[in-house]
Amino acid sequence: MGGAKKIENGSLTISGDSIAAVGPAASVPTDGARKLIDARGRVVMPGFVNCHTHIASNMLLRGLLEDVQLFEWLQTMWQLKRNFDEETLYWASLMGLVEMAKAGITTFNEHFDAYRVEPQIAALKTMPLRATLGYGFADRGLYAPITDWSWKALHSFDDKVSRHHRTGNDRVHVGLSPHSPYSCGAEMFKLVREVADAHKVVIHTHLAEGPQEVAYVSETYGTTPMQWVYSLGFLGSDVTAAHCTQLNDDDIRIMAETGTKIAHCPCCNAKLNSGTLRLRSVREAGVTVGLATDGPASHNSLDMFQEMKFAGMIHKDKTNDVEFLKTGELLEMATTGAAAAMNRPDTGKLAPGMKADVIIVDLDKPHCLPVYGEAAALVYSARADDVVTTICDGQILMEERALPGIDETEIRHRFREGALALRHRSLD
Amino acid sequence: MGGAKKIENGSLTISGDSIAAVGPAASVPTDGARKLIDARGRVVMPGFVNCHTHIASNMLLRGLLEDVQLFEWLQTMWQLKRNFDEETLYWASLMGLVEMAKAGITTFNEHFDAYRVEPQIAALKTMPLRATLGYGFADRGLYAPITDWSWKALHSFDDKVSRHHRTGNDRVHVGLSPHSPYSCGAEMFKLVREVADAHKVVIHTHLAEGPQEVAYVSETYGTTPMQWVYSLGFLGSDVTAAHCTQLNDDDIRIMAETGTKIAHCPCCNAKLNSGTLRLRSVREAGVTVGLATDGPASHNSLDMFQEMKFAGMIHKDKTNDVEFLKTGELLEMATTGAAAAMNRPDTGKLAPGMKADVIIVDLDKPHCLPVYGEAAALVYSARADDVVTTICDGQILMEERALPGIDETEIRHRFREGALALRHRSLD
Repeated sequence: MGGAKKIENGSLTISGDSIAAVGPAASVPTDGARKLIDARGRVVMPGFVNCHTHIASNMLLRGLLEDVQLFEWLQTMWQLKRNFDEETLYWASLMGLVEMAKAGITTFNEHFDAYRVEPQIAALKTMPLRATLGYGFADRGLYAPITDWSWKALHSFDDKVSRHHRTGNDRVHVGLSPHSPYSCGAEMFKLVREVADAHKVVIHTHLAEGPQEVAYVSETYGTTPMQWVYSLGFLGSDVTAAHCTQLNDDDIRIMAETGTKIAHCPCCNAKLNSGTLRLRSVREAGVTVGLATDGPASHNSLDMFQEMKFAGMIHKDKTNDVEFLKTGELLEMATTGAAAAMNRPDTGKLAPGMKADVIIVDLDKPHCLPVYGEAAALVYSARADDVVTTICDGQILMEERALPGIDETEIRHRFREGALALRHRSLD
Repeated sequence: MGGAKKIENGSLTISGDSIAAVGPAASVPTDGARKLIDARGRVVMPGFVNCHTHIASNMLLRGLLEDVQLFEWLQTMWQLKRNFDEETLYWASLMGLVEMAKAGITTFNEHFDAYRVEPQIAALKTMPLRATLGYGFADRGLYAPITDWSWKALHSFDDKVSRHHRTGNDRVHVGLSPHSPYSCGAEMFKLVREVADAHKVVIHTHLAEGPQEVAYVSETYGTTPMQWVYSLGFLGSDVTAAHCTQLNDDDIRIMAETGTKIAHCPCCNAKLNSGTLRLRSVREAGVTVGLATDGPASHNSLDMFQEMKFAGMIHKDKTNDVEFLKTGELLEMATTGAAAAMNRPDTGKLAPGMKADVIIVDLDKPHCLPVYGEAAALVYSARADDVVTTICDGQILMEERALPGIDETEIRHRFREGALALRHRSLD
């Protein structure tokens, strides 16, 4: 489907953490397999890749404030964040990982939103998804309270790299996440580039997210957000830029020239009035684009089915072209494209040697039938609950909707109680 | 929530087909109840009302052609429709009813799209939802092949009224559904108005759906679609107009003055580039607006959760106002508002004397937690699969996701096979 080709009656074998073979059943030997999963009548596809999100902190903010202006939202958020504790963050992180595993997301790109990462690293041991964890830094505006912490963390980044980078059988990577052009100064962007080059880790930031940012950067630096960070030598193929709803033609040319990638979050951008990515233009310029959910505080759902469907609808509407963004392209942007956008090219595709990040989707549901074509059914009819099995790094995280070794009831209970207590002590 | 008020620890009792009492548990006696449903920790709310759809025919077209221009789509659709048979339409209708019941939709407004209604009436005996069935008529353009049939059906409409109207304990109503200003001439709109007045049945049509329709009506009649049908004496408070994406200020004034109602289908309108309803303006003018899914051929999902969420996102984006369309208003538009928009005021609300159309939603799910407020969780986090129990007209259609007396596997099988055979004999 899409760029990928569909195999009818196929088989796929996994050896260790990788895909050993995939092809027509007759050509893929399965003798001696330790475990067989019968996926007849179902779709076997790459696990979804969510190339921009904030799990740990954002899970605690989902649905807390809807329909309000950004400033009110940010103030409330900071009141809560002041009171975050490690245990609550652990259960929040674990709940987010469970939500993603149940929705068929096997890889995600975390922007830590400038907060403590240890609880999420612990949660990733319990629910082992593939992740790149970007350490968040900022030193301007509303984010000024974390200036000292940010510089210290940047200067001691080698500790984090040596402790967590490429751990968990190489599932967990770490990276650098300067927050944005309105919350980080020039010196911070420059140092992030130096540290990234020194440690060979990726960068994940917010760029050109909305009109307010454009106005701030124009006033302060006399240019666009993209051109400003470019002038600092910050951009490159190791940078994932979330949002990019405010790009002019020069910005797009710079992204293409530097190989900078885009994490496109259509639901969040619409809901928060941030603008709309010029998707056709950036793709035509050759910029890599992946779909992403953003954090549950801004869009509420860690659900790539919703992002694919909403992206299809909103871009057809805004380009006034029903032929734009075909179902296969949307699937690609949610898997291979998103993997490329976060520089994890070893996932998002079913091929020998790729990481065994595989999901099975059951389309034999009232809301999906008839299935004239799998791509259309996956993009416009299927829901996250239709994912029956999720495999990451060769490990079964979910089988027939059950999570082996995970006590979901306990996690829900702990998370719910922790979140309500946090709100109580922060806001009431 | 929304206009409605939330009751913590409430009880609701049903007597026959109606709600007997609803309020704080202590004030609602439940002694002697024949059946008790424990909904602790869950949300009890009115069943969703889908005030514009096409089940019977459209179920067979879902996902068949995506990403193509309207004309190609219509031609293929007509090739299939030519070969529709009663049995396939029965299983298609039943599958659609099952999909809606499982998604918490208890009432729907069917526009028959000019096709045979008997299979759907049969299906409504097996899966007894509340419905208004609009008999479709047309005599212009692509729809010319059904001109003779349409006039005959209009002239003999009294038979249909006497046979099906207010049957099934008043669950099933019939109505009149002229297709649209580009597919029905003036004489047909005038006769529909006469027949509706004579039989006191409602009218359900497509109006101002897209730029093509506006261009056609302007060229042919020198006015707007809304003003043209108004000049024919067609509009009134018994008319549900689907879409209305192309309204000028005078059109809106006319709708308010005549009490004409709007079925708003945000997903379908975006996906097909039909334009966007001026929701704020029509609401400010006092026009009643309900949400609807349209048929699965044009938007794919009979799912009011998706319509609420998409409506919230797209209208915040297009009005550039994050405070517009609050979660409570979206819930209202999917229940009470949609019931009003299809002139079925006896449903869509939990109050004594209202029809017992009630659903129970389980928000204790990873993707919904934490629940700081039920309205936000229902609109932006919950999915159709979170509906656990569906009651319509006092009858339990679904309990803990199981459909008593329904063999869903058989229905899926028959529907799937019928659809694939139909496509084979029509298109291959």
